[in-house]
Amino acid sequence: MSKKPSSTDLDRFILPFRVDGSGEFHLRSHKTAEKGGLDKEEGYKLLDALRTRLTDFQDKLYAQDRWAVLVVLQGMDAAGKDSAIKAIFEGVNPQGCEVTPFKAPSTRELSHDFLWRNVLALPERGHIGIFNRSYYEECLVTRVHPELLAKEKIPSKLMTHAIWRERFEDITSFERYLSRQGTIVLKFFLNLSKEEQRKRFLGRLDEPSKNWKFSMDDVTERARWDRYQAVYQDIVRHTSSAVAPWHVVPADHKWFARLVIGATIVRALEGLNLRYPRVDKASLEEFKAVREALEHEGKPVRKPKKQKGKLE
Amino acid sequence: MSKKPSSTDLDRFILPFRVDGSGEFHLRSHKTAEKGGLDKEEGYKLLDALRTRLTDFQDKLYAQDRWAVLVVLQGMDAAGKDSAIKAIFEGVNPQGCEVTPFKAPSTRELSHDFLWRNVLALPERGHIGIFNRSYYEECLVTRVHPELLAKEKIPSKLMTHAIWRERFEDITSFERYLSRQGTIVLKFFLNLSKEEQRKRFLGRLDEPSKNWKFSMDDVTERARWDRYQAVYQDIVRHTSSAVAPWHVVPADHKWFARLVIGATIVRALEGLNLRYPRVDKASLEEFKAVREALEHEGKPVRKPKKQKGKLE
Repeated sequence: MSKKPSSTDLDRFILPFRVDGSGEFHLRSHKTAEKGGLDKEEGYKLLDALRTRLTDFQDKLYAQDRWAVLVVLQGMDAAGKDSAIKAIFEGVNPQGCEVTPFKAPSTRELSHDFLWRNVLALPERGHIGIFNRSYYEECLVTRVHPELLAKEKIPSKLMTHAIWRERFEDITSFERYLSRQGTIVLKFFLNLSKEEQRKRFLGRLDEPSKNWKFSMDDVTERARWDRYQAVYQDIVRHTSSAVAPWHVVPADHKWFARLVIGATIVRALEGLNLRYPRVDKASLEEFKAVREALEHEGKPVRKPKKQKGKLE
Repeated sequence: MSKKPSSTDLDRFILPFRVDGSGEFHLRSHKTAEKGGLDKEEGYKLLDALRTRLTDFQDKLYAQDRWAVLVVLQGMDAAGKDSAIKAIFEGVNPQGCEVTPFKAPSTRELSHDFLWRNVLALPERGHIGIFNRSYYEECLVTRVHPELLAKEKIPSKLMTHAIWRERFEDITSFERYLSRQGTIVLKFFLNLSKEEQRKRFLGRLDEPSKNWKFSMDDVTERARWDRYQAVYQDIVRHTSSAVAPWHVVPADHKWFARLVIGATIVRALEGLNLRYPRVDKASLEEFKAVREALEHEGKPVRKPKKQKGKLE
């Protein structure tokens, strides 16, 4: 395997999992356990190469200061969101890459529209922003738990049966707007099997260093598995678009999920033709003069010749 | 004139100036000098009554904590935006009413999409937010001055001839989203005549207390009057909607402009059926007990009778 995977190499880890709204979507026809014909070791080698390219692209993204990248990660508990962020982005310069985890909203956040706290955290031009959970929770956990929707204090007149359709429409418009402003929106649903979640929960209970990751709430939510799956399917169906596609990532093998996410991000950055800003000719001339001045700084300066024949 | 103008009374100061996207719009057919059959003194009496109602409504809006109101003020220099805010809102409790003037964007603001700084300043539920200029400048001054658009650092690939149409669409979607979240969006274009602007500029030059309001830039922009008018017409045409209508306010008579703006806001608040949150029966019962406790606080407490026949 070459150290620098070609674009065609990458496509086979991206295209099978991309949903851009052009066709039908059924979550059931998407596998949770995939390996793309690789073994774990090959997978990690490839991820390593991707990380190198990602670091290189990010440096140019930052220097060019025009595009931004928004990575949205969604998935059930223990789907591997946190560990994917660590594995993919650990080589990246944190000045230019921010992760925002969205947990239960604060009182102040609930006093605003549901996108508000997300907008505050959007990446600036030149930056990569990673949303660990996101505004999609406002069509997900609030739909599974109506008591959380009630906390948003929306006037009752506006709480109609159309609310989820409206949110899908609003989110789609929002993402289209972001893309027009120069933000590349990449969304990942980490598609985990119920059995694999069971194993990971057991791991969290058994392993002291993982205990802190376990919460009783996770088990309560696990009981609502089918409902969550149905709502996720609805979300992907109604909010996939060419400018903000979903990627339904097989997540039972963590290494493969990371490969898919990494490949998708690298491929998107590749498409931007990022380069360091070029300096124009005039500036290059100026640079010469500045270089000369810097080189001779501190050295004795030759006295300028006296002007002849001119008196004050 | 009655102290409390009826809704029908108010409608004649609102409906002739409202543009909700249902018909054609030509700025020329809108007068800049209107008095609605009143004289100045009658106008101010009416505005006084409106202010009282506004204060009352705002108190309930705040207590109910569900709806928000966003007032957007646009207009040429000296159209009377600042003085209208002062005249209409000076009775209102500032805890629950915030004014945000949008001047030239900062470097940080330019690093974000153009709505970003506006979203940060959106009113919370229960609040009135006033935008003195707004995101509409990003379809206005940036259109008249392409060098300002360039400062937004949008990737060149996205700078197409469709940019204004796209911004109109994005803004319309944004305002629809806000209305679904419970924010009433009311937009006002203070429609001033060129001659009246001339007079007001002369006033600013003559009157020492108004000198600070005058800037040489104002004169430069005045030279682009026709261009600004054409762009304003385009804005009103493409961003008027039932949920976020424009109001093209005759602004040559300041008192009349204030009346129109005040009446429009009061009428919108009236439509919300605002009321103080009702306390349920169970709480009322509890209140009784609390009242009793508070009334007897500090007074000598009768000793409880000793329990008979019980040993520790």
